[in-house]
Amino acid sequence: MGMVGGGRGAFIGQVHRMAANLDGKIELVAGAFSSDPEKSKLSGEDFFLDPERVYGSYEEMAQAEAAREDGVDFVSIVVQNHLHFAVAKCFLEAGIHVICDKPLALDLGQAKVLQKLVHDSGLIFALTHNYAGYPMVKEARRMVAEGELGRILKIVAEYPQGYAVGDVEGEGSGAISNWRADPKIAGASNCIGDIGTHAHHLAHYITGLEIEELAAELTAFIPGRELDDDGNCLIRFQDGVKGIIYASQISNGDENNLNIRVYGTKASLEWHQEEPNDLIVKFANAPRQTYRRGNDYLGSAAQENTRTPFAHPEGFIEAFANIYLAATAAISDQIEGRPAPEAGYDFPSVDDGVRGMAFIKACVDSSQNNAAWTKLELG
Amino acid sequence: MGMVGGGRGAFIGQVHRMAANLDGKIELVAGAFSSDPEKSKLSGEDFFLDPERVYGSYEEMAQAEAAREDGVDFVSIVVQNHLHFAVAKCFLEAGIHVICDKPLALDLGQAKVLQKLVHDSGLIFALTHNYAGYPMVKEARRMVAEGELGRILKIVAEYPQGYAVGDVEGEGSGAISNWRADPKIAGASNCIGDIGTHAHHLAHYITGLEIEELAAELTAFIPGRELDDDGNCLIRFQDGVKGIIYASQISNGDENNLNIRVYGTKASLEWHQEEPNDLIVKFANAPRQTYRRGNDYLGSAAQENTRTPFAHPEGFIEAFANIYLAATAAISDQIEGRPAPEAGYDFPSVDDGVRGMAFIKACVDSSQNNAAWTKLELG
Amino acid sequence: MGMVGGGRGAFIGQVHRMAANLDGKIELVAGAFSSDPEKSKLSGEDFFLDPERVYGSYEEMAQAEAAREDGVDFVSIVVQNHLHFAVAKCFLEAGIHVICDKPLALDLGQAKVLQKLVHDSGLIFALTHNYAGYPMVKEARRMVAEGELGRILKIVAEYPQGYAVGDVEGEGSGAISNWRADPKIAGASNCIGDIGTHAHHLAHYITGLEIEELAAELTAFIPGRELDDDGNCLIRFQDGVKGIIYASQISNGDENNLNIRVYGTKASLEWHQEEPNDLIVKFANAPRQTYRRGNDYLGSAAQENTRTPFAHPEGFIEAFANIYLAATAAISDQIEGRPAPEAGYDFPSVDDGVRGMAFIKACVDSSQNNAAWTKLELG
Amino acid sequence: MGMVGGGRGAFIGQVHRMAANLDGKIELVAGAFSSDPEKSKLSGEDFFLDPERVYGSYEEMAQAEAAREDGVDFVSIVVQNHLHFAVAKCFLEAGIHVICDKPLALDLGQAKVLQKLVHDSGLIFALTHNYAGYPMVKEARRMVAEGELGRILKIVAEYPQGYAVGDVEGEGSGAISNWRADPKIAGASNCIGDIGTHAHHLAHYITGLEIEELAAELTAFIPGRELDDDGNCLIRFQDGVKGIIYASQISNGDENNLNIRVYGTKASLEWHQEEPNDLIVKFANAPRQTYRRGNDYLGSAAQENTRTPFAHPEGFIEAFANIYLAATAAISDQIEGRPAPEAGYDFPSVDDGVRGMAFIKACVDSSQNNAAWTKLELG
Repeated sequence: MGMVGGGRGAFIGQVHRMAANLDGKIELVAGAFSSDPEKSKLSGEDFFLDPERVYGSYEEMAQAEAAREDGVDFVSIVVQNHLHFAVAKCFLEAGIHVICDKPLALDLGQAKVLQKLVHDSGLIFALTHNYAGYPMVKEARRMVAEGELGRILKIVAEYPQGYAVGDVEGEGSGAISNWRADPKIAGASNCIGDIGTHAHHLAHYITGLEIEELAAELTAFIPGRELDDDGNCLIRFQDGVKGIIYASQISNGDENNLNIRVYGTKASLEWHQEEPNDLIVKFANAPRQTYRRGNDYLGSAAQENTRTPFAHPEGFIEAFANIYLAATAAISDQIEGRPAPEAGYDFPSVDDGVRGMAFIKACVDSSQNNAAWTKLELG
Repeated sequence: MGMVGGGRGAFIGQVHRMAANLDGKIELVAGAFSSDPEKSKLSGEDFFLDPERVYGSYEEMAQAEAAREDGVDFVSIVVQNHLHFAVAKCFLEAGIHVICDKPLALDLGQAKVLQKLVHDSGLIFALTHNYAGYPMVKEARRMVAEGELGRILKIVAEYPQGYAVGDVEGEGSGAISNWRADPKIAGASNCIGDIGTHAHHLAHYITGLEIEELAAELTAFIPGRELDDDGNCLIRFQDGVKGIIYASQISNGDENNLNIRVYGTKASLEWHQEEPNDLIVKFANAPRQTYRRGNDYLGSAAQENTRTPFAHPEGFIEAFANIYLAATAAISDQIEGRPAPEAGYDFPSVDDGVRGMAFIKACVDSSQNNAAWTKLELG
Repeated sequence: MGMVGGGRGAFIGQVHRMAANLDGKIELVAGAFSSDPEKSKLSGEDFFLDPERVYGSYEEMAQAEAAREDGVDFVSIVVQNHLHFAVAKCFLEAGIHVICDKPLALDLGQAKVLQKLVHDSGLIFALTHNYAGYPMVKEARRMVAEGELGRILKIVAEYPQGYAVGDVEGEGSGAISNWRADPKIAGASNCIGDIGTHAHHLAHYITGLEIEELAAELTAFIPGRELDDDGNCLIRFQDGVKGIIYASQISNGDENNLNIRVYGTKASLEWHQEEPNDLIVKFANAPRQTYRRGNDYLGSAAQENTRTPFAHPEGFIEAFANIYLAATAAISDQIEGRPAPEAGYDFPSVDDGVRGMAFIKACVDSSQNNAAWTKLELG
Repeated sequence: MGMVGGGRGAFIGQVHRMAANLDGKIELVAGAFSSDPEKSKLSGEDFFLDPERVYGSYEEMAQAEAAREDGVDFVSIVVQNHLHFAVAKCFLEAGIHVICDKPLALDLGQAKVLQKLVHDSGLIFALTHNYAGYPMVKEARRMVAEGELGRILKIVAEYPQGYAVGDVEGEGSGAISNWRADPKIAGASNCIGDIGTHAHHLAHYITGLEIEELAAELTAFIPGRELDDDGNCLIRFQDGVKGIIYASQISNGDENNLNIRVYGTKASLEWHQEEPNDLIVKFANAPRQTYRRGNDYLGSAAQENTRTPFAHPEGFIEAFANIYLAATAAISDQIEGRPAPEAGYDFPSVDDGVRGMAFIKACVDSSQNNAAWTKLELG
């Protein structure tokens, strides 16, 4: 495994490395950790890398690693949003598989270019919508797929955080990174783009339903900010399913409060990211049930994506590592010439990335149009 | 106290009676419990009433009680929605104070007529938005009023229930009463009218904020129904405050899941009706706090609206009884010629009823107009 | 109904009156509210009583009411512990049914005298172990009785409170009433007597199991106190069932934290008084279940002891009122000559009172004997 | 790092490896994974080891690694209980630092021998009482140490599990491994030894209090078992602090339900292993507080033992990895000649191991003596 970005002090790079380390099956051997070659070198030392494989630019790395017999099997891309496209394109063109942090790209156009590249090349491309890695999210998905909820009627997905509220009254210390507030780096949306897409991905991952159109109101509560720090959407999913998706960074005291509720004709379920080992299932006229991670009564996906017995809690890093395991299993299959499993792979794909970018675009367009109903350009 | 409606087997009538009984200060002495005089008489026997004061019609009752020296001090109106107007008008015109179940009337026009009648007559008129009776809701209100949350930024109020979901697939037994699905009896909305208004009232009661406009999507998931069983609204409150209000009767497995979250610049709070003795308060950068009913550290309203020590849980009936206590205190003041307290009375008023009817009308109008932003006609 | 004790400002008297009032079926018509006739009179005015039936002593009241044709059907005894015996004896001897606050008496000897009196007279005697009135406690009992838990193996019942902890360091304001710390008024134990007996009663009510012997350590953490404010017991129930019962008044920050867990070979259950509307049921190898008050899937006792639909929370007063309903149903049966129902009545009896006094005595004896195993003298 | 035990399919070995892997600072380079050399070799392949450093016996490994210039810095011991002593002794005598799974040894005598060896050699010896690795446990410890709870009065620590209950009625599949039920391999206790010691360690880790004496009742509910599957203890800590510690493997439906409550004169705290990211703190007369992992308001130990921002849940493996980080920091200090930090190291030590063995011995002795008070032989 190689890495682009994620040098010293970069949070998401460290998460990717811990996720890769956890199971002792992936080794970081190369990287371009910073656009500053000196910094990149220092980070390489932190990670005990061969200095020869620590690069000053991602282009150099892609070229060199593609040329080595023992070149990296895949690259993890953990740079800022606006660089995802160029870096991913570069490695894909060099024939190297990619695990990329979300969002996929700066805008929908770039996303579709990458999508075509991936489909044409046949390379593996995984996007780290990490919440899909939680075992109980996989159980939720199984329940919907096997019809245990009946016909889905309504979905409510929410992702309130409060970490930026201090900036609303100007006494704040710029909790939202400058780059996240800059459309040239972050894209057309901050809050919906950064976390709203997680809520959206979760809704799609669990139910498989596409959004047809949405009405969104995005707000920048923080003075002087161009991009949203709060967004609320009414959703019309396919098949008449209704929903609400909202996200916020000014919801004081909420930490990482991603929640989803899926309501069906036979049962409903709810999952709270902050208590990820539980899945609450509510059948009509029956006691409320709590499915708990690590138990034998769960489906195979939930069981296989678990490392410890019941009630030895697992968390964010383990979920992240599950995405890595699934993606690298696919990469191994390709490298060793094994066919893909019939059921396919279970990691967020470039298509999910396109879906996310279409969601962001629709939210921004709708909001600029006074919350008019706006269709997703998935085409 | 007299009662109109609420005879044998009527749920809400019984709740009103328990609320009135609880503190041993109110006695039911007269009633017109049914439009069928025979049924009314039988109910009167259930309640140990003097048969002479059990009436066959509300008109008769209003006239007779107004004429008696020992006539009722007030009447509780617990008939179906479409009769609220006529009954309330009749008693007000007879000079009798009123405690009326919500919604105030069948439509906004009727509501405004009652509002004028009340204001002109000076009579006490209380509307039983009972959730405002919970001590911890009163504590929430105090915190907002005293600025402990800072400037309010966002409100999310939700009221999902699932009891009618069985009817979506036609296997149901008509969980929503026929009359609630009939616009002539229930008014222009079922779900928003019946429970959405509770969420709306709670938001206003706690924050004092008025809705300026809203974008609503109401849905009738149950085949053959004219009125909504689910509704989702984006809200623009005054002063740039944003919000979401939604209600549902097809949210499978949810019981009486009324929740509200109020986010301010200094702190936020959340209250869950199903665990009403707790109020969760989240200050920025501080441990999460749970304020619990019955403690000395609470404000006076929360303390005074409590009957048992901390952690001897109180519930729905006690909250309902708090509305009765506040309304009857006001009635006593009038009867005995005491001035109203400077801080005013703490019970939902006819103005809250008008506010609720305007909310319902805006939701229905917006939804019929493809969720266009629609102003509230509070005028 | 008449009342002895419970005048102005007395907490438990007010709870009894609210419980009696709630359902509109019981009327307070007589009382000896204080040993001070003047105070008794003032309380009588508070409750709108005929002055003639407000008495200056319980002896006078018993005699007078027994002599009246319209004399009270029963008396509620809410005096201090050391008077329970004399008052109860007086009314029983006058042929009047009794609802008595717990504990039954000052010591086991008195308790057995009352037990004999009740059995010999055939009068109804109810003890307000009010936690047995909660619907979900009744559901727990049903589940055990019908074998849904299998064979019971272990019971853990706890009742920590923290309200008296301020007195441990001497800065306190005497949170435990003086009389509760005085063996002549409270009996041989304070903490175990006042609240430990509730935990004990709950364990017996739910499982029907008798304690064979126990090893107890009682502690008086508050300086200068003769009676315990904390007590921990190892329990040997009949049939090899093991258990722990503990109670505390110095468990800082705990409010009324009565909890019970019952473990069986097929399933276990837990109930928390502070969230009384839920009953958690844990079957081996199955999702955890939460049975919720007000649902149709519950047994008949849970359903019948409920006043509002699911998730319209009920609490302490409603549970208390359920004891009143059950006891007064029995009293009505006697008065109107109806036979008792085959299944018997569902309220805590004089036998439960004797059981509780034997539990207290065994705890005190064991503790004085360095926690030696001590048998219960149920005889 | 080397490893003894923990080959293919061994749960605890895998946990140790994940904990070591997580932070990318420790590399497994040698091992004796099984007493069967063939199996050991296969496990070595699983972990990508140099075959030369995969050994057929721990003695061979200790000798060979001690002799290599690049020999392992420390060994992780994850064999069955009865071998801990011999393996640990062997590596300590070879001058190699040790991380050892608990319990320290088969009995108190062995434990004290190891203790002397460690103290005499000055080598680092860490025992993986992993629950002490949770950040919020460290916060609890800090609060007690800094006096935020005032004087400690009472401790309740419990560890109920239900996984073995199926064997009580004989229909079970031997959920408790045979070796755990065999005193020659597991030691004198199964349940208290395996999990009771975790509860005991937690109580000591958080409060620093020693147990003076205890009264224990151990039970073997499973027919035919020599060792306990349930145990309940009354505890007398030093300084008059009272407590309860209990553990169980037949508490149906409980999973890994380790909980601790510590009550002080100023405040109390509770921590639940199944929700490890929260610490509940209850000050007298103040709202209940929930301290949450990842926040700036926590003490330094809680902050430093964290890898992700607030509400990105961390769990069991991260806590385990914290023990590894602390122990390997100490090992690095020794190897690189740095002095130990003034505050000392924060990992469970050989002294904790001796303390645990003394606790087990006291429980077993007391139980065999009908729960007589029994002192801990810590001397």
